[in-house]
Amino acid sequence: MSNIQVNRTNSQNLYKRAKEVMTGGVSRNTIFRRPHPFYAATALGSYVTDIDGTERVDFANNMASLIHGHSHPAIVEAVTDQMRKGTAYTLGTQIEIEFGELLVKRNYNFEKIRFVNSGTEAVMSMIKATRAYTGREKIAKAEGAYHGTYDFAEISQIATPNTWGDIDKPNSVPVAFGTPQGVKNDVIVFPYNDTERTLKLLEDNKEELACVLIDPVSHRVGMFPIDEDYLMAIHKWTRKNKVLLVFDEVVTYRVTYNGAQSKYPIRPDLTALGKIIGGGFPVGAIAGNEEIMSVFDPTRRILKQPHSGTFSANPITMVAGKTAMELYDSQAVKDINHMASVAKKQIREVVKEVDVPIKITGAGSMFRFHFRHKVPSHFRESYQDKEERKLITDILDYMFLRENIMMINTFSCMFSTTISQREVDKLTDALFNALTKFKPRIEALAK
Amino acid sequence: MSNIQVNRTNSQNLYKRAKEVMTGGVSRNTIFRRPHPFYAATALGSYVTDIDGTERVDFANNMASLIHGHSHPAIVEAVTDQMRKGTAYTLGTQIEIEFGELLVKRNYNFEKIRFVNSGTEAVMSMIKATRAYTGREKIAKAEGAYHGTYDFAEISQIATPNTWGDIDKPNSVPVAFGTPQGVKNDVIVFPYNDTERTLKLLEDNKEELACVLIDPVSHRVGMFPIDEDYLMAIHKWTRKNKVLLVFDEVVTYRVTYNGAQSKYPIRPDLTALGKIIGGGFPVGAIAGNEEIMSVFDPTRRILKQPHSGTFSANPITMVAGKTAMELYDSQAVKDINHMASVAKKQIREVVKEVDVPIKITGAGSMFRFHFRHKVPSHFRESYQDKEERKLITDILDYMFLRENIMMINTFSCMFSTTISQREVDKLTDALFNALTKFKPRIEALAK
Repeated sequence: MSNIQVNRTNSQNLYKRAKEVMTGGVSRNTIFRRPHPFYAATALGSYVTDIDGTERVDFANNMASLIHGHSHPAIVEAVTDQMRKGTAYTLGTQIEIEFGELLVKRNYNFEKIRFVNSGTEAVMSMIKATRAYTGREKIAKAEGAYHGTYDFAEISQIATPNTWGDIDKPNSVPVAFGTPQGVKNDVIVFPYNDTERTLKLLEDNKEELACVLIDPVSHRVGMFPIDEDYLMAIHKWTRKNKVLLVFDEVVTYRVTYNGAQSKYPIRPDLTALGKIIGGGFPVGAIAGNEEIMSVFDPTRRILKQPHSGTFSANPITMVAGKTAMELYDSQAVKDINHMASVAKKQIREVVKEVDVPIKITGAGSMFRFHFRHKVPSHFRESYQDKEERKLITDILDYMFLRENIMMINTFSCMFSTTISQREVDKLTDALFNALTKFKPRIEALAK
Repeated sequence: MSNIQVNRTNSQNLYKRAKEVMTGGVSRNTIFRRPHPFYAATALGSYVTDIDGTERVDFANNMASLIHGHSHPAIVEAVTDQMRKGTAYTLGTQIEIEFGELLVKRNYNFEKIRFVNSGTEAVMSMIKATRAYTGREKIAKAEGAYHGTYDFAEISQIATPNTWGDIDKPNSVPVAFGTPQGVKNDVIVFPYNDTERTLKLLEDNKEELACVLIDPVSHRVGMFPIDEDYLMAIHKWTRKNKVLLVFDEVVTYRVTYNGAQSKYPIRPDLTALGKIIGGGFPVGAIAGNEEIMSVFDPTRRILKQPHSGTFSANPITMVAGKTAMELYDSQAVKDINHMASVAKKQIREVVKEVDVPIKITGAGSMFRFHFRHKVPSHFRESYQDKEERKLITDILDYMFLRENIMMINTFSCMFSTTISQREVDKLTDALFNALTKFKPRIEALAK
């Protein structure tokens, strides 16, 4: 796509400098694109302007973390105020308690909460808490699911047809080279939304399992909601076998006023949070059952999981997060989800008009495209092979360079509350052009 | 100490609310104190005022992370500017490259750098990088050393006489209950500053070791500098056996203009950074040898360690960090270290005058007190038992409540550049009172 004429001189030059100091020129692979990343200058609401002056509509929102888009005035004001009072102390702050109260009130099953600095830290601390509470060493997680960079949580995230093995007993495929065998042994991988196989795998390891870790709308598995019967079966099994059921809602907490979990009749024992609850600042949290959370309690005679963190619950993140989540009230959730369904409706019409084999999955304010004749509901059905990845990259490059639309690299959109009909129309029009242009390749690929 | 009259009503009441939503009432154990934590209202320079109106001199600086004290005007201004342009994007930013350039220029052995969100994330990613690069699974670390909350890095951090075992082969003592046996097996624990035993342990595991992880002035081991001959012997051994030597300088990077490492004739292969480089905002970084860092490189045909992070290298942390580190120039390092040595000199005079068995260890702008007749240089010598911990808590409570001085709970001070002779005199006078008051108990305890 390098023949597309777009003003990119400044980004090109900056990338040369970037390569001198960062390996591959990036500090996070999500911003990488070939032949070079683009660099942001300013951003406001739904729009980001790069250092070459091109303005784009943002449907990525820093990987789903900016629920109110960029530079929301209330957040800017609250943080500016706090900053004059300090950004971190070796003391507590009132704001961490107020924000804790807000989230604990929001979900009745969040009996206690603890803040950390990232989704990765939240999932890691949550997994460690389940081991500390149960005294058991293994965890079970879904094939293909992303839960951050803790190596236990990473297992099987990038499973491929060459590595994933028999679906009756999926392999523990590590993400990083050199992942210890002990880590692989301690993670049981199950196929998402496949009740029979999942229960069999859990049953085979029941004596050793600390928890079942799952996200209720797994964005990497395929961004389809978890099947209710499946979730109920897992829940029932965990109750029977005294294994903890823990959710990763780092991405999905946006889906309703109190997370994707509230769409189901049961609640997890613990939930990992992150992304939107930081109001645009680094954040993570673990919330849930009081008795389990007490493994962190420094007032207990036996402290099962000593835990701290220099920047955990820092007042900047707390004030930004509290402001963002107050603004993300039931009406805001309703509005953003409505806007996303308007978008999906318009896009489905485009798909019909262009007549391309594309299916859309998602929930609430997030959705994802698949080159499929049938809506996928399992990881191995939604898996994007190399050729498909190439096509997605080409389409997203086209959207970015020609249509000035930013999307997430799995071919997804994560809305912010600042997205209005105007931006939805831009997205729809751009997708019409993209799908028309790439129709032959999509047709050739679609399964 | 609860009979000390201090205005604490607001903190007391707030803690009641805190306990309702956070287990033990805290989100990080470092801020916990009995019967309740205190809460910060505002802070400027070297002073923190709590919500009951008491102002204290801060020698803790959010666990050594605020090198310029609180609310430094240049940092406040730089962050305020950036905030209006956005706090995070799914694009790169110029500021991450500029800050990367600054640090890469600062240490010649930082050939490449990558930013993360915390010291915990930095050490975790660094350990994973050494495994990815070498293909080996085990790491070696020092008994008693603190390296964040990644379970491999945590092993042996809270070893006690009951658990630490034979010094010839220290036990892999986990911090958290339920730590998998696989984790314990994959960590070799060696006694800091003990050349013969350390080399023997490394030699016994040489085929399986990915790295030796060490901090050059281990604050938890006892905050004494690593013995040069010891470090040279380890370095030589790692070169011979193709094992990586990696430093945790999250705390110690402040010690000279380019870290505690520059006090020695050799350089580590990789260094983990954090704390002061964030300018008061959540941060971590891995820096070092280009070839090893290339495990993170998304442009390579084989990407050995896929790695990202929603808030990694966010422009707020980058601009705060860059501003802080520009201000922390060689003159500032010289000045802060001078101020700390003036403090140590004055305190040594106090110790002599009061005639108590106290020894001081440390480096640069940080120092720690020990109830010892002889300066400790090994972990088992500096280990604080229960009775000693109780005395330290009582002394620190006295300093906090009566003398309005904040210190770090290991009985340490971490200076900021805003500490002047005035604050050093306050510290010295307060310590005179404290040591006089607690002299009998210190004498009874000192080893």
